[in-house]
Amino acid sequence: ASDPDPIQDFCIPNPRFGAIRTAHLNILPCKNASEATTDDFVFSGLKAAGNFSETGLATIPVNPSVFPGINTLGMSFVRADLKVGGINPPHYHPRATEIAYVVQGSVYSGFVDSSNRVFAKVIEQGEVMVFPRGLVHFMMNVGEKPATIYANLNSQNPGLQKIPTAIFGSGINEEL
Amino acid sequence: ASDPDPIQDFCIPNPRFGAIRTAHLNILPCKNASEATTDDFVFSGLKAAGNFSETGLATIPVNPSVFPGINTLGMSFVRADLKVGGINPPHYHPRATEIAYVVQGSVYSGFVDSSNRVFAKVIEQGEVMVFPRGLVHFMMNVGEKPATIYANLNSQNPGLQKIPTAIFGSGINEEL
Amino acid sequence: ASDPDPIQDFCIPNPRFGAIRTAHLNILPCKNASEATTDDFVFSGLKAAGNFSETGLATIPVNPSVFPGINTLGMSFVRADLKVGGINPPHYHPRATEIAYVVQGSVYSGFVDSSNRVFAKVIEQGEVMVFPRGLVHFMMNVGEKPATIYANLNSQNPGLQKIPTAIFGSGINEEL
Amino acid sequence: ASDPDPIQDFCIPNPRFGAIRTAHLNILPCKNASEATTDDFVFSGLKAAGNFSETGLATIPVNPSVFPGINTLGMSFVRADLKVGGINPPHYHPRATEIAYVVQGSVYSGFVDSSNRVFAKVIEQGEVMVFPRGLVHFMMNVGEKPATIYANLNSQNPGLQKIPTAIFGSGINEEL
Amino acid sequence: ASDPDPIQDFCIPNPRFGAIRTAHLNILPCKNASEATTDDFVFSGLKAAGNFSETGLATIPVNPSVFPGINTLGMSFVRADLKVGGINPPHYHPRATEIAYVVQGSVYSGFVDSSNRVFAKVIEQGEVMVFPRGLVHFMMNVGEKPATIYANLNSQNPGLQKIPTAIFGSGINEEL
Amino acid sequence: ASDPDPIQDFCIPNPRFGAIRTAHLNILPCKNASEATTDDFVFSGLKAAGNFSETGLATIPVNPSVFPGINTLGMSFVRADLKVGGINPPHYHPRATEIAYVVQGSVYSGFVDSSNRVFAKVIEQGEVMVFPRGLVHFMMNVGEKPATIYANLNSQNPGLQKIPTAIFGSGINEEL
Repeated sequence: ASDPDPIQDFCIPNPRFGAIRTAHLNILPCKNASEATTDDFVFSGLKAAGNFSETGLATIPVNPSVFPGINTLGMSFVRADLKVGGINPPHYHPRATEIAYVVQGSVYSGFVDSSNRVFAKVIEQGEVMVFPRGLVHFMMNVGEKPATIYANLNSQNPGLQKIPTAIFGSGINEEL
Repeated sequence: ASDPDPIQDFCIPNPRFGAIRTAHLNILPCKNASEATTDDFVFSGLKAAGNFSETGLATIPVNPSVFPGINTLGMSFVRADLKVGGINPPHYHPRATEIAYVVQGSVYSGFVDSSNRVFAKVIEQGEVMVFPRGLVHFMMNVGEKPATIYANLNSQNPGLQKIPTAIFGSGINEEL
Repeated sequence: ASDPDPIQDFCIPNPRFGAIRTAHLNILPCKNASEATTDDFVFSGLKAAGNFSETGLATIPVNPSVFPGINTLGMSFVRADLKVGGINPPHYHPRATEIAYVVQGSVYSGFVDSSNRVFAKVIEQGEVMVFPRGLVHFMMNVGEKPATIYANLNSQNPGLQKIPTAIFGSGINEEL
Repeated sequence: ASDPDPIQDFCIPNPRFGAIRTAHLNILPCKNASEATTDDFVFSGLKAAGNFSETGLATIPVNPSVFPGINTLGMSFVRADLKVGGINPPHYHPRATEIAYVVQGSVYSGFVDSSNRVFAKVIEQGEVMVFPRGLVHFMMNVGEKPATIYANLNSQNPGLQKIPTAIFGSGINEEL
Repeated sequence: ASDPDPIQDFCIPNPRFGAIRTAHLNILPCKNASEATTDDFVFSGLKAAGNFSETGLATIPVNPSVFPGINTLGMSFVRADLKVGGINPPHYHPRATEIAYVVQGSVYSGFVDSSNRVFAKVIEQGEVMVFPRGLVHFMMNVGEKPATIYANLNSQNPGLQKIPTAIFGSGINEEL
Repeated sequence: ASDPDPIQDFCIPNPRFGAIRTAHLNILPCKNASEATTDDFVFSGLKAAGNFSETGLATIPVNPSVFPGINTLGMSFVRADLKVGGINPPHYHPRATEIAYVVQGSVYSGFVDSSNRVFAKVIEQGEVMVFPRGLVHFMMNVGEKPATIYANLNSQNPGLQKIPTAIFGSGINEEL
């Protein structure tokens, strides 16, 4: 994956250095290993959906800023909920492959490869779909009840670029 | 992570080369990209538990030999079910970090770091625990109903070394 | 960069294995090093522009399939020509950073970061702009004569996903 | 190997930042290259055995905290001495392959692969054995005089997890 | 390439930490992404040749210390000008492959592989030659007018070791 | 290090594919893991010196072509013997750091960094010196008895470029 390999067992970010956290991802100082606790390695914030957007999507992205135990380990994850008819619009992650697991519901889900070919189908509870690194993908709840997705990505900072916003909301089109 | 980065969008193993598949993981020839189908990227085999072992554990490990679409993408995953009182004995994955998500149940779950310190606690449905790469970890169903875990690993071939067997079943101890 | 490091001086693809070349980038067998010639390491096909598209863009992408000497070395490059008013539409390379050098002309050039902020300006002959890996970027010839760009990328197979086509030409929108 | 590649010739840790050394391996600030001396790159502390443990083992592990010149270069090494009958108990290094060279003596030496198969035999002075990354290995002096091993590992922080202690000394077994 | 992959979109070095810049390449703190400007990603200092050495060579090496936008992105570049008869003496870059593009002129250009075989020929305006990572290479202007080369390297700190100086200027030979 | 990480426990080259071995290092097919034997992981060919060159140097380089068990594991090693006054002339390894251990004797040993500074001194039996990746280094036996060096490198194919030959024996100088 995109991330460097860990060179120690783990590296719990030291809260005394919290001020520089968001801007300096790759130099997060670690707490002394002896100060790490079991709770640093357990995340309990996925039990309910997050706040819904206009398109009927709620996401809880989990990275080292909210779950310190995964720092330097090359992974992050997300819970996504979709209302009936809700959409996770086309977007891509520049630095990670994503493996999405349907916890409940029925979603039309797909991605586009470098030759602009679309790979998409409806996936159901218990099914898994992979979105290769850097490729545009999307989801839509086509079932009759809410859908919940639990997805893992193989970078602690996969990045997220939303396609429609990038093109229409950024002022590029007016100029081009 | 341990795996090399992908150097193309994806690489669906070509079944005409199936005979060399298991022994030669890193030289799996790819199908022509135009022959890939959506079904290559969707896995439907996790809907029910696998077969249970003597310790009350059933696992369905998912890697490129059963899910071709993840080949070269640096991830694999597994469904693990534990009967009441069932145990996933101490083991480690030499080549991957694991992120375990409790789909249902209540499991005593933990790992041991390089200084032999144990990080363990009971985690419940909807909670997540991380096992850093190469460290011994274990699980035990301490609830009153079956438990199901869905775990992701950031290597397509993480490896699995079971500790008790390694020590007691391998003939080392007799000689030492 | 995304590519694995070379583990020998070079690896000129062996033409006897040409049939599997395009589909199997990562297992190109090498010629014996003693059969390599100086011409394997020199590329002479950039002296004139390529064929122009409807948007006034002509590109000559150079990768190991046309320039064997760069195989396994982690780089590729491209000559891009833009007619007056010509456009290189928004696109991104999933596996490489790009450094673009203006050989002649005046181009409005930019990229969009993960927070959808645009970084763009007009760059002139002799100037250089960098497009970080995986981020959408674009160019438009805003001068009064043709423009020529010479760009390097730090992967031998950077990938190319064109944004407008991906969204409008792929059938996603009709369904969403 | 597990370590990131060096991005400068070398990086001698700066003693003025010594306080954060042990906890923050990956952010060791370097001395200015012009302040490096030849002695930074030579290690003289292997001439005699270290202190012996209860099992008859003495080790001198050499990493950047005692040999600054190897910092960022992706290697470390160790001298191990075994009394007659002495044992280096089963352990593994999560982040490195080890190549062991017998300086003197005769040792029963082996490792266990992921399928729990043991590869072991007696090796003599001048012989070399490799222990692949992340696999459990062990040694026992089966000769009639002391044994000395000089081993190299391809990480500056390979990690060390002792199997018997991990399982029996950590309290896991009592709970399981 | 040799450099670690980026783990964020970009990392513009923060001038408030300028004092530690040259000595500590791998821990350059980033500016907050929101403070980055378009000019951070454009370099305008290649429009004229640099200062000429005794051998008739002028180089302008461009790395993050002069072009902050390429920091962490795994590339750097250089403009080299050669007077008529000017020489870029044998040297190598320990950490990068180089792709040289002849902007103008006619240069005898070559490299030496690990078996001491020379690959060399005269290359002209618009031609490109690749020098694989770590191999000795050189150039000489054999045309009748000045030559300009624009070269890219796939590391932000490729290193430069000049062979004649290393051997003759360093005092090794006197002692050997 | 330069080599990709292993993605399985080990990969013993399959002798049935021996014909393509030397030319195609990175696609060595593996034997089935169950066919591996303990002897694949033990090397016994270092007990005596190799054949001496004109400069009084004898080397036994050990890589996967003679020691199959180290294939894909990212390391190789060498025994070097120097007669009294013998010289290992200036050379470098493009793809590996080297750690040299003096088994017996007294050698003047050193390397040259990218700024052409020499780091050199006499090292004795039991001492260790590190030569960072890609930097020119050399040795000379300045003692009164033969010297033996045992050195490890963190690549299975580190490469070897001899400086004097490269410059004087290759025809570059005549042309330059």
